[in-house]
Amino acid sequence: MFFHRQELQYKSTPDKPDAVYARKLQEVLGGQYGEISVAMQYMFQGWNMHTPGKYRDLVFGIASEEIGHVEMLATMIAQLLEKAPLGITSDAVQDDPTVAAVVGGMDVQHAIVAGAGARAVDSNGNPWQGSYITASGNLLADFQANANAEMQGRLQVARLYHMTDDHGVRDLLSFLLARDTMHQNMWLAAAAELQEEGAELLPVPSNFPQSMENTDVNYQYLNFSDGTQASEGRWAKGPSVDGKGEFTYHEGPTTTAPMPPPTRPDARMYGTTDLPNAMEKVAGRAQDMLNRE
Amino acid sequence: MFFHRQELQYKSTPDKPDAVYARKLQEVLGGQYGEISVAMQYMFQGWNMHTPGKYRDLVFGIASEEIGHVEMLATMIAQLLEKAPLGITSDAVQDDPTVAAVVGGMDVQHAIVAGAGARAVDSNGNPWQGSYITASGNLLADFQANANAEMQGRLQVARLYHMTDDHGVRDLLSFLLARDTMHQNMWLAAAAELQEEGAELLPVPSNFPQSMENTDVNYQYLNFSDGTQASEGRWAKGPSVDGKGEFTYHEGPTTTAPMPPPTRPDARMYGTTDLPNAMEKVAGRAQDMLNRE
Amino acid sequence: MFFHRQELQYKSTPDKPDAVYARKLQEVLGGQYGEISVAMQYMFQGWNMHTPGKYRDLVFGIASEEIGHVEMLATMIAQLLEKAPLGITSDAVQDDPTVAAVVGGMDVQHAIVAGAGARAVDSNGNPWQGSYITASGNLLADFQANANAEMQGRLQVARLYHMTDDHGVRDLLSFLLARDTMHQNMWLAAAAELQEEGAELLPVPSNFPQSMENTDVNYQYLNFSDGTQASEGRWAKGPSVDGKGEFTYHEGPTTTAPMPPPTRPDARMYGTTDLPNAMEKVAGRAQDMLNRE
Amino acid sequence: MFFHRQELQYKSTPDKPDAVYARKLQEVLGGQYGEISVAMQYMFQGWNMHTPGKYRDLVFGIASEEIGHVEMLATMIAQLLEKAPLGITSDAVQDDPTVAAVVGGMDVQHAIVAGAGARAVDSNGNPWQGSYITASGNLLADFQANANAEMQGRLQVARLYHMTDDHGVRDLLSFLLARDTMHQNMWLAAAAELQEEGAELLPVPSNFPQSMENTDVNYQYLNFSDGTQASEGRWAKGPSVDGKGEFTYHEGPTTTAPMPPPTRPDARMYGTTDLPNAMEKVAGRAQDMLNRE
Amino acid sequence: MFFHRQELQYKSTPDKPDAVYARKLQEVLGGQYGEISVAMQYMFQGWNMHTPGKYRDLVFGIASEEIGHVEMLATMIAQLLEKAPLGITSDAVQDDPTVAAVVGGMDVQHAIVAGAGARAVDSNGNPWQGSYITASGNLLADFQANANAEMQGRLQVARLYHMTDDHGVRDLLSFLLARDTMHQNMWLAAAAELQEEGAELLPVPSNFPQSMENTDVNYQYLNFSDGTQASEGRWAKGPSVDGKGEFTYHEGPTTTAPMPPPTRPDARMYGTTDLPNAMEKVAGRAQDMLNRE
Amino acid sequence: MFFHRQELQYKSTPDKPDAVYARKLQEVLGGQYGEISVAMQYMFQGWNMHTPGKYRDLVFGIASEEIGHVEMLATMIAQLLEKAPLGITSDAVQDDPTVAAVVGGMDVQHAIVAGAGARAVDSNGNPWQGSYITASGNLLADFQANANAEMQGRLQVARLYHMTDDHGVRDLLSFLLARDTMHQNMWLAAAAELQEEGAELLPVPSNFPQSMENTDVNYQYLNFSDGTQASEGRWAKGPSVDGKGEFTYHEGPTTTAPMPPPTRPDARMYGTTDLPNAMEKVAGRAQDMLNRE
Repeated sequence: MFFHRQELQYKSTPDKPDAVYARKLQEVLGGQYGEISVAMQYMFQGWNMHTPGKYRDLVFGIASEEIGHVEMLATMIAQLLEKAPLGITSDAVQDDPTVAAVVGGMDVQHAIVAGAGARAVDSNGNPWQGSYITASGNLLADFQANANAEMQGRLQVARLYHMTDDHGVRDLLSFLLARDTMHQNMWLAAAAELQEEGAELLPVPSNFPQSMENTDVNYQYLNFSDGTQASEGRWAKGPSVDGKGEFTYHEGPTTTAPMPPPTRPDARMYGTTDLPNAMEKVAGRAQDMLNRE
Repeated sequence: MFFHRQELQYKSTPDKPDAVYARKLQEVLGGQYGEISVAMQYMFQGWNMHTPGKYRDLVFGIASEEIGHVEMLATMIAQLLEKAPLGITSDAVQDDPTVAAVVGGMDVQHAIVAGAGARAVDSNGNPWQGSYITASGNLLADFQANANAEMQGRLQVARLYHMTDDHGVRDLLSFLLARDTMHQNMWLAAAAELQEEGAELLPVPSNFPQSMENTDVNYQYLNFSDGTQASEGRWAKGPSVDGKGEFTYHEGPTTTAPMPPPTRPDARMYGTTDLPNAMEKVAGRAQDMLNRE
Repeated sequence: MFFHRQELQYKSTPDKPDAVYARKLQEVLGGQYGEISVAMQYMFQGWNMHTPGKYRDLVFGIASEEIGHVEMLATMIAQLLEKAPLGITSDAVQDDPTVAAVVGGMDVQHAIVAGAGARAVDSNGNPWQGSYITASGNLLADFQANANAEMQGRLQVARLYHMTDDHGVRDLLSFLLARDTMHQNMWLAAAAELQEEGAELLPVPSNFPQSMENTDVNYQYLNFSDGTQASEGRWAKGPSVDGKGEFTYHEGPTTTAPMPPPTRPDARMYGTTDLPNAMEKVAGRAQDMLNRE
Repeated sequence: MFFHRQELQYKSTPDKPDAVYARKLQEVLGGQYGEISVAMQYMFQGWNMHTPGKYRDLVFGIASEEIGHVEMLATMIAQLLEKAPLGITSDAVQDDPTVAAVVGGMDVQHAIVAGAGARAVDSNGNPWQGSYITASGNLLADFQANANAEMQGRLQVARLYHMTDDHGVRDLLSFLLARDTMHQNMWLAAAAELQEEGAELLPVPSNFPQSMENTDVNYQYLNFSDGTQASEGRWAKGPSVDGKGEFTYHEGPTTTAPMPPPTRPDARMYGTTDLPNAMEKVAGRAQDMLNRE
Repeated sequence: MFFHRQELQYKSTPDKPDAVYARKLQEVLGGQYGEISVAMQYMFQGWNMHTPGKYRDLVFGIASEEIGHVEMLATMIAQLLEKAPLGITSDAVQDDPTVAAVVGGMDVQHAIVAGAGARAVDSNGNPWQGSYITASGNLLADFQANANAEMQGRLQVARLYHMTDDHGVRDLLSFLLARDTMHQNMWLAAAAELQEEGAELLPVPSNFPQSMENTDVNYQYLNFSDGTQASEGRWAKGPSVDGKGEFTYHEGPTTTAPMPPPTRPDARMYGTTDLPNAMEKVAGRAQDMLNRE
Repeated sequence: MFFHRQELQYKSTPDKPDAVYARKLQEVLGGQYGEISVAMQYMFQGWNMHTPGKYRDLVFGIASEEIGHVEMLATMIAQLLEKAPLGITSDAVQDDPTVAAVVGGMDVQHAIVAGAGARAVDSNGNPWQGSYITASGNLLADFQANANAEMQGRLQVARLYHMTDDHGVRDLLSFLLARDTMHQNMWLAAAAELQEEGAELLPVPSNFPQSMENTDVNYQYLNFSDGTQASEGRWAKGPSVDGKGEFTYHEGPTTTAPMPPPTRPDARMYGTTDLPNAMEKVAGRAQDMLNRE
């Protein structure tokens, strides 16, 4: 169960209206790596988790914090829009290019659809979607996904930081940046602990027996581009990260197989099969078909 | 530039038709973590990369290999469909429930739309989409995304391994599993090398000065759920993973702020604002508006 | 801010596994009118609301309850999947058509992607999306949307009730049905109260002066189909529901206008404009263009 | 069957070009609550309706009118684009910021894709989609959806009215506003008539026996937020709107249940289950698996 | 304007219920090449057309016919569902695998969402979307798109023909096949007439001066795969189809250029740029940044 | 298999930065008819093709060239963004309307998400999706789709040509225009060759026996709009294009059928069926239902 308290985790008030920036902030609210994504991702990981205890407490606890981050951003966006020109004709002298630019750069649905409010979309107006999230039941894979989400998230907030000089907005962003710092560290710590405890190891999933994978190619670096420097990386020589193999470097594939012959499905799929002078065969096929029906 | 060679990287021929399994294989071809996703993700990372050399060679090389994996899966799917019952009425005795089940469990668009061929969709028929991929220009963040993609990918292939006993299919899967093993190791190695070289450190992005984030909360674990065990994890005490802070544990938020007052945008947004007995005010507003226009 | 308590609002445990039913339940979790939709819809209405007090308390309170409903459904789905055959080959005798039917009728991503867990999708595997929700800032319009959502939701749960005879599932559904009964009543009560207080009246938005709409046609029923019985309805005669007009009935449109002439945009849009014998003109245009460039 | 007449229901010609406004108008053509949505929604309700007569005549008649509204908007948009600067470099002095702002604020696909024509998208360029519509077969639920659609639609048109001072555009909008007034009234009248006739009552669906829902909680207001004013509303005390219960107010849930234990699906789902020191068990499981296969 | 007549263009009644087939029929109602697509495509072409007369009459006329085809299919689908088992538990003996297969193979949203009615989706439940349609303003390009749509459409209907032996369904399909035959012929005739009249020629757009394209490569066949037989086709030798060039065949590209150096955007984009030993430079950059802000 | 060479097919370097144009170029990279679409479309056609030889060599060869076109465009976009103002506050004097217009007209995700790089989206930021492509197995239908794609593509590039005066960009576009010229010619040549060889004829699919379609209406032009000029076209009289029929012209439909009676699905679908005075019947039904359960 979830309970709401009518307070924010941190102050979320801009100095001045800015409809164009409101649009940009939507990215970290409703984008691929926005706060809705992490809130939903952690919740579903909790509901699908197969073990009670510290890891499940962890995902539930952070999920709830993240809904509160959605709330801070939505609150901020509504305030950035509150007194901004939103395309109403009398907002300004008709031909003021600065106002025109604002109206051109804002999310017009902020005005037309939400009446000066936040929306569950990204900075290009793409609706948030359930396919952004990852909850596989395998904790090492999922904590990797979480660390990635927090890295992309902090990166985007850092970029947004330089796109405004509003002190109120920057203050909120400095809070979000700090929490993303914590959350990056946290998921990496959790991934490390999982491995220390032996619950999951590399490669994921670690309880799939490696003897059942093709052991000829599982530590080969195969170079399908003509650059020559990939051979210099740590991934091309020496022991593998999982400690179970030795990296080797190869130009191109070490295995090949001929393409199998083209498929010839049932004639009633009406694909093109017989070339050339196909019509005779086709006439025969059609007649067969009619007879069979 | 890309060049095609009419060979496969590995043998891709099933023992027998299986339309239901063909549908399942679509997940690792065109799903969120399928081969189209990794191919496109690595390509875009290459095109957006700001540094020449080993890392760019790496993403280009693996991207190209991954398109070949799409090809192997598409080839396999077409063969699994080739002689399978695809819903054609005379395929079998009308009321054979086994045939009915096959037809029920297959992707009907495999027959109706593709005429017994593969499609750029996942196992539920959702079209592949560009929002699955990540290419931020920040290599540590992106290599984390890549490692996640290969982990989720190997996990899905491992599950699929047990959903068939076709030796031809399993042989292909054992090859893909091995390559995913390599690719997991490779991206983690690349992420480690980036950090050793000092090109990127934690937290990402490392060249955003941490003095500009809120330094009160950037290593605090805040528990927003009522579970008690999250305090036992490595993320709740001791030095942080990035080596720059000390984790502390807290029940709930350490900061709060009142919600700002509701916004009151321009009356011509027609939001509901004045309660109760609002009609008098509204009448006045409307008159004002008409006067102004 | 949101806080999580590790309890459910109601018991959510099935008697027995049922992967096909798990898929169906996804509709009311992640479908157009599922619990994610109402949770997110009410939250955004709260964040965009322009007036403090009882209406804002209302949307925040119910939003939080609804996230808990997502949780109950996700918990139920994971349990329905726990011991169900999920397509693993050795689950059952190969050719058992009942098992085949189960596997055919389930959501295959439940197994391949989520490892026997719930997902943020509907019963056809379409990811939940932000475009399902409505938060316009106008409370009478939005409460109407909310009442609709609860009606569609209760209707779907009622249908699902008859698609299982599992007592555990039915017990949960009887709880959800009851809450939907309450929520339908609640939003209709809120809509009525808004109108009684005069905060919003019909037609929405009530503070747009009706003198600015076309007052010739604003209470006319115009019949564009050849059925004759629409004239018998309450919408075709007598006083209008908003009390501001008198319904009248008309066969077809009462106004018409000629279509304006086709547009002729700039030649460099390369639309087809001049017919016939257009080539001469085109040659001239092209030459002009080159000269201008 | 549908027949087209080459006239418009109302005059649809702007005074002057305005590419930015053309983009905004797309919202009410191809957005969530645009004219395509209502046309398609009413059509599908007609095709799925289980009773002949006045209600079916109603949905067919209005559906057809609404396609004509799509036509008027598309015609208007093409004209707004006809002579507008659409990004062609020589349209204006290179650095004229007003022209730049126009080009920045327009839908660039209007030029690149449609060659100065309308598109089946909303004001942010999101394609219209079938998931916007509602046709459940239950008329009271669906008429509620229709009333909502017309309210949101009229609200958006009212906002758009103030975003232009073009007399031709405003004239068209005043016509659309009037029709939305009628259609709001009409659907509410139809919903009232349905209830008077006893065909459907509240709560929807009314022929699901309320004895089968949980009668303890079906008229309880449960407050999951810490606001205190929701208790003052009509939804928290007194008789329910459907006349079948009595509202009561409660702080938080009146029922709770422990979360069921985490699920433990088949090991071949490769979820993380056993903690800590899981490796021993895993090794055993893997061996079992290999033996079984 | 559009008018509806409560008749169908052709009889649309099945012999018997078939929920699985109802799902399949959705493809040609709401799929990429279904009847909604062609109806909307032709309408938008009409609204965006720059010339009055026979071509515009053509697209308007056929568009209207196609909405009627949507209607026939929706009517058919509702009847196929009317008495079919839709997953209601008491529909049949619990363990009857034939019934289970039906329920597994149907579109479960037909029951849960539409209450046994048609939906605006394809055979996998993907909602119809505006991005399926093409209306560019260039008639030769668009008529080519139309011919393609009718070819794909007739192909899908032909496949569906063999997936049922219901005489009522087949009768409707034989009508749709015939109309697709006509429509294929019609669009090819229209494309031919456009070219005869000189309104548009190949290559499209014909009034873009070919002197402005790269005339070295505009009739070269460049072979990027290692197959050798493409040189035998009509596209590799002899006069080009547009009569303006001569096809030539080449192994691989005839032009190449070095990749430009990687980009180095502003440091505040936080991309990874300087390798190795980047930290020193980063520290300097960060300091600069702080100084500048 | 696919191999990458670190060269471009053609020079791709702009004279100067232009973030607004970078956004526009996304259309031909990741839009409905962009280079990702044709690359993927031709690949899937190759993988699903039922005949070896020249046609399969053709689709594989061109598919590979097209991935290289994606690469050229992505490379160009990254360079256009490299030194452009991307919304960073200190980029320019705060109130410079020209800079504001640039920022307003750019794709903000280019900066926030990709850090000044290209993305797999169109010019409105809609992610590329698998539903853009066509690969039916029928070569005549698919080559028609390919010709359409190349026509729409060349049309869009021609429009983009006039939206910049950057010589570097125009040079690249002149190359792409030339390749689209070739590809249009090529697919039309391939379609012609298929027909000459008798592998496929009109109407598609040609091996579906026309005796099984409704031969009364398969060459009738039926006019559902009130324009009179469609009768003048080549599609309304004379021999049909496929040489198998004679076009005739008709006002409106030549066939009609009454709408079948409304469906009455199972009462547990809770649709609205019985009007008026339905309540008595409903009560009976409900009782029946309870008894049956």
